[in-house]
Amino acid sequence: MGTGVARKISESTVRRLSLYLRFLEEFEEQGTETLSSEELARRGSTTAAQVRKDLSLFGSFGKRGLGYSVRELKSTLRRLLGLDRAWRVALIGAGRIGSALFAYGDFRRRGFTIVTVLDTDPDKIGARWGSVRIQDAEGLEEVLRRESVDIAILAVPVEEAQRVADRVVDAGVQAVLNFAPTQLHVPTEVALRDVSMSMELEALSFALTTGNGTGP
Amino acid sequence: MGTGVARKISESTVRRLSLYLRFLEEFEEQGTETLSSEELARRGSTTAAQVRKDLSLFGSFGKRGLGYSVRELKSTLRRLLGLDRAWRVALIGAGRIGSALFAYGDFRRRGFTIVTVLDTDPDKIGARWGSVRIQDAEGLEEVLRRESVDIAILAVPVEEAQRVADRVVDAGVQAVLNFAPTQLHVPTEVALRDVSMSMELEALSFALTTGNGTGP
Repeated sequence: MGTGVARKISESTVRRLSLYLRFLEEFEEQGTETLSSEELARRGSTTAAQVRKDLSLFGSFGKRGLGYSVRELKSTLRRLLGLDRAWRVALIGAGRIGSALFAYGDFRRRGFTIVTVLDTDPDKIGARWGSVRIQDAEGLEEVLRRESVDIAILAVPVEEAQRVADRVVDAGVQAVLNFAPTQLHVPTEVALRDVSMSMELEALSFALTTGNGTGP
Repeated sequence: MGTGVARKISESTVRRLSLYLRFLEEFEEQGTETLSSEELARRGSTTAAQVRKDLSLFGSFGKRGLGYSVRELKSTLRRLLGLDRAWRVALIGAGRIGSALFAYGDFRRRGFTIVTVLDTDPDKIGARWGSVRIQDAEGLEEVLRRESVDIAILAVPVEEAQRVADRVVDAGVQAVLNFAPTQLHVPTEVALRDVSMSMELEALSFALTTGNGTGP
């Protein structure tokens, strides 16, 4: 794994960095060249102090009284988030969620290219999705190694998710994005994100039930 | 909004409650009747102290030395998360992501029923998805009111997301699950969750780049 930022950065900080990057892109499209932490905070429904604190984690960017250069800050955030390079992504599971993810244009725009799709269904294996041919998940480890996959997206049934995750990790993949509604176990050196649509809905039903906000 | 838990509960606590519930269901399927906080912690890769702290937010459940009754704790968590009732959900956007969400069985199992689907595409309006007919999003407010929608899922293009969110809120819906890759503005009394697949990938590329874990 790389070096760089030594401190442990919280999940919500990383999420805010991703959001700041999106806001900066919006501001740039509108022709804005410099920006104060107040303006960035307003766009993100947060405080200027929070913005300054987040950005100061990575060194000092703004010039006192002049604000941030949109172009510079954007490029720094892209570098911090690892978006100044291309990432090779394997999509495991060619079902409905897999196919929606494959078609999701925002991935490619961000430098995440799905270089291989795998499934166990004989009716799907061999089919073409764009420039990619669906591979037999039987040979998962070999495909992941051959394609030099950086990140695996798991869009498999919940009963299979842990077993597939184990194989992905065995194949040397260091980052997993899991869409099965469970919590996977991976070694601590492997980065894991779980996206559970039903847990998101539960956060909303919790909020509706208790009148409790669920902000970060 | 309801009353109940007075303190503000963090997003990550609610997420852990959702996970505990899933683990309890697993344990119950395996025939386990009582459980210690240690066992629950081990399943969730967390600490027993964390489990006890989370659960104590809602009153004391465990009997000293006897652990938690799986059935009781499960039912308490379901009630806390608002899963002891049915929620009426509108799906706005019948594209690829919308259709994957519609087919997602886990929603219905959790008590979230998609009672209406809306889109602006004339080719889609009127089509049947299961027992639901796709409605013209032109009449969004009326449909949401007529169907007594509790939660709106937004699976619309990013350029339209804020405008649609404003209309949903105007129609009186108090909870929004947003799949467009942006941060929406809604009044503080409206519960909002953003699911951004590309931001999840960015959290992974950040971790791969910096060697920084992104745990909660």
